[in-house]
Amino acid sequence: MRPKEHTHKHFLTAGECNAQRQMPITLIAQRVIEIATEHANILGVGYSDMIKFNSGWVLSRMSIEMTRYPGVNEEYSLTTWIEGFNRLYSERNMEIQDGNGETIGYVRTIWVAIDMDTRRPSDLSSISWLAETINDRSCPIAKQSRLMAVKDEEATMTTQHQFKVSDIDFNRHVNSVRYMDAILDQWDLEYFDNNEISRFEIQYLHETHFGDNAVIKTKITENIAEAEICVGENASCRAKIEFKNKN
Amino acid sequence: MRPKEHTHKHFLTAGECNAQRQMPITLIAQRVIEIATEHANILGVGYSDMIKFNSGWVLSRMSIEMTRYPGVNEEYSLTTWIEGFNRLYSERNMEIQDGNGETIGYVRTIWVAIDMDTRRPSDLSSISWLAETINDRSCPIAKQSRLMAVKDEEATMTTQHQFKVSDIDFNRHVNSVRYMDAILDQWDLEYFDNNEISRFEIQYLHETHFGDNAVIKTKITENIAEAEICVGENASCRAKIEFKNKN
Repeated sequence: MRPKEHTHKHFLTAGECNAQRQMPITLIAQRVIEIATEHANILGVGYSDMIKFNSGWVLSRMSIEMTRYPGVNEEYSLTTWIEGFNRLYSERNMEIQDGNGETIGYVRTIWVAIDMDTRRPSDLSSISWLAETINDRSCPIAKQSRLMAVKDEEATMTTQHQFKVSDIDFNRHVNSVRYMDAILDQWDLEYFDNNEISRFEIQYLHETHFGDNAVIKTKITENIAEAEICVGENASCRAKIEFKNKN
Repeated sequence: MRPKEHTHKHFLTAGECNAQRQMPITLIAQRVIEIATEHANILGVGYSDMIKFNSGWVLSRMSIEMTRYPGVNEEYSLTTWIEGFNRLYSERNMEIQDGNGETIGYVRTIWVAIDMDTRRPSDLSSISWLAETINDRSCPIAKQSRLMAVKDEEATMTTQHQFKVSDIDFNRHVNSVRYMDAILDQWDLEYFDNNEISRFEIQYLHETHFGDNAVIKTKITENIAEAEICVGENASCRAKIEFKNKN
């Protein structure tokens, strides 16, 4: 059986909350990666299936839009489904609900499969049957916009950042979530007391390694921040964050 | 009903693994805090119960000893129980098993309850009935040793570290797990390819806040590292790590 959607329920513990006593957006990203992995395993296109073709899924883009964040001791759930699939990538969405079944957010992700040796995109033709699991469930948030480079002269903030052991993942690259931390850590605590992230888009470009010295450039225009993490000439990722004033 | 033990099963996803494709010890610490919270909730001494007395549990000490770390796509479970309880603190242990029910590690923790305003220890006499839930299940790892200050002149490594937004928790202090990251991030990736942590002890002393500039001093003697994180004159925490060569 290949279920066209998969749901995972969670409970937000105090230990997982941020200083605003809510679910951090980085934990949402982690749960998104987790449920995508679970559903892929169920569908027979998980890590152990893909590695037979010397291939593995890599998160290419993610857009998270939240109207409300779960609070401490609150239940919440993620439901995921495949919206689109072709030879080059898979589009997978998520709906986030609170414990009462109210929708509090949506997520759009794009996954490419890469060859584990060349790190180049694999052809997904051999799992073309995955298209049969496409689900027409609605995901009423905008598709990801094109994220632009931040020019040195446009940057409102420029931060140096070195990636450490705790930033490195299974594939020996910087963990997708740690890029988000590195970007968001440029603001102070008071900013997040007064402002909430309503939309966070990220696009992963070049893989980054242990010890890499990065520069984070951020351009702020009203309530929108565009950020780029660069190692030398290469952009590791670009992000666009929309903030909403809480007051 | 007040169950004398509580078990939570987990599955280790690729996204949760470290570069050695194993469960990071920081994720074990997170799961330890999580299951302690769950069992406390079940027993009626969770966050929502304690806050009625303007009190809350704070992790004071943790010792983790692992003979093997779960790998990718492996199931594992934590079982927790209360070993001791008095007016000042509660001793709570965990056993970690793999998917086959083999024991792969044990954890000892000590929790104190603090008054949410004064941040001083609360008297636990009002929940003295908790002593009835004490379980004599065995925890065959050593109790925590006394962790000593690391003198400046003894330090093999000295690192500056500033705590950022992503380090701050529910109580607006540095997250217990992020201290561990800060300490372990002093080694390089190759060191963890060749050495595994067999025991990690940590003692939390002074609370640390957003923006605090810390100094991490580490004294290495053969396979043992003693570390101390200080902010000004105050020690935030002390740790002792035993490494085992993997080759």
